[in-house]
Amino acid sequence: MTWVLDLTGIFVFAISGALAGVRTRLDVVGMAVLAFFTAVGGGILRDVFLGVQPAALHDAGYVLVPLVAAGIVFFWHPQVTRLLPSILIFDAAGLGLFCATGTEKALLFGLSPLHAVLLGVVTAVGGGVLRDVLSGQRPTLLYDRQLYAVPAFVGAFTLAALFEFGVRGPLAVLAAAVLAFGLRFLAMR
Amino acid sequence: MTWVLDLTGIFVFAISGALAGVRTRLDVVGMAVLAFFTAVGGGILRDVFLGVQPAALHDAGYVLVPLVAAGIVFFWHPQVTRLLPSILIFDAAGLGLFCATGTEKALLFGLSPLHAVLLGVVTAVGGGVLRDVLSGQRPTLLYDRQLYAVPAFVGAFTLAALFEFGVRGPLAVLAAAVLAFGLRFLAMR
Amino acid sequence: MTWVLDLTGIFVFAISGALAGVRTRLDVVGMAVLAFFTAVGGGILRDVFLGVQPAALHDAGYVLVPLVAAGIVFFWHPQVTRLLPSILIFDAAGLGLFCATGTEKALLFGLSPLHAVLLGVVTAVGGGVLRDVLSGQRPTLLYDRQLYAVPAFVGAFTLAALFEFGVRGPLAVLAAAVLAFGLRFLAMR
Repeated sequence: MTWVLDLTGIFVFAISGALAGVRTRLDVVGMAVLAFFTAVGGGILRDVFLGVQPAALHDAGYVLVPLVAAGIVFFWHPQVTRLLPSILIFDAAGLGLFCATGTEKALLFGLSPLHAVLLGVVTAVGGGVLRDVLSGQRPTLLYDRQLYAVPAFVGAFTLAALFEFGVRGPLAVLAAAVLAFGLRFLAMR
Repeated sequence: MTWVLDLTGIFVFAISGALAGVRTRLDVVGMAVLAFFTAVGGGILRDVFLGVQPAALHDAGYVLVPLVAAGIVFFWHPQVTRLLPSILIFDAAGLGLFCATGTEKALLFGLSPLHAVLLGVVTAVGGGVLRDVLSGQRPTLLYDRQLYAVPAFVGAFTLAALFEFGVRGPLAVLAAAVLAFGLRFLAMR
Repeated sequence: MTWVLDLTGIFVFAISGALAGVRTRLDVVGMAVLAFFTAVGGGILRDVFLGVQPAALHDAGYVLVPLVAAGIVFFWHPQVTRLLPSILIFDAAGLGLFCATGTEKALLFGLSPLHAVLLGVVTAVGGGVLRDVLSGQRPTLLYDRQLYAVPAFVGAFTLAALFEFGVRGPLAVLAAAVLAFGLRFLAMR
């Protein structure tokens, strides 16, 4: 279940990376590279900091899903662009999910709640920062008018608080993810 | 003792990161992100290369001190900017300290003096490079007119030489740090 | 033998990094930094992802060869620039070699062929991406008109296929490297 939600997050982040490639007129290879690092960059940073091999190196889905997303954008990007509002919704869902799963993984590795929240936010926003740096743009994360880091922080904090009070597992992840998603969704309007 | 000096270095580097955020008109979230990565970026790179979990993930000070620094700059940046000359002095102290402690940590992990010096310099300059790349500027490290990398190299080399001749511990760290600080201070005038 | 070829790749990538420093008017310290990260950046990323200490921290050649290359470019860059066509050939040889050795190392660490190919490409192109980001340019990798990522992918795929069919060792590495080199060479014409 978590795996399905995780790949959903991977997929929508990859779409946003590939679309950034379209906007800056990359060819299909560049789009695939951007899609891949946008989708798995945050998780790779989290795992490198935790000192474990990135999950993206053990699961074929983490490689194939971004490539599929890049292919979809390459062939049908006018249609995808028309759907952008709903993609932003999926992107918010990915943000919510990744801040929750990233925080949980860090807590399971024995980090303190403070540091687990930090890693959860890194997981949620890391891919977007890599996308922006590689695209030659200043990271949108640094301009938080649209509230990007704050919902991730609230979601990570909620997960850590639930975890400390003994509420663990998929339900806690979903609760934190939905809260972060809701805040992000309200901030976009 | 080393821990206090370390957090002092963290603090002054965080101030410089937050001020870079002010100059590029970031909001408070962007300032906190820049402050954090400027302060702990070099140490995180060092620890990732050494294959250990970053110290920043085990000590609350590494997270809270950059946040406090960002808060100070956010509320009082006119006053902080007026104090800039003395902040540059603290920044030079941080550079000196980090090149010494970074080299020592690498030597204690069994690296050769050559590679330990390399990691010491990475520890000292890494945070500033991250700050510049995230701010969309070319790293000032690459333009060494103001002598930034050279003092760090001299300090790291001195620490490694002392270590090899059996002079170890806080005194060796302080000697190397003071030497690098002095060179950097002279270069700024 | 592999070690000699590896340092040859390090050397030519370092030359390309130092020349990028000349083009953007860096001083000698900046040139050395760019040369070093261009040459060993891809391998460092590969080793960090694999969870092992970077080879660049255990072998003096990985540090000294980039410094020598930077020195050569600093003192004789007009002559080096005149030789640029042949340097591009060496760069293509480095690309070919690194995609093959990177993929082999990942397979020997037990990664699946899919992920080993991914790491092989990262090894081959990572240094160039770091060079471009540090130079304040958008990575040329993203604009693949000159076919940079594709030859690396073909070489990595070939090495993985040979490995899976039991053809291993230096001969397999050389076969894959020559194929990637040939494709890159044809694409440059």
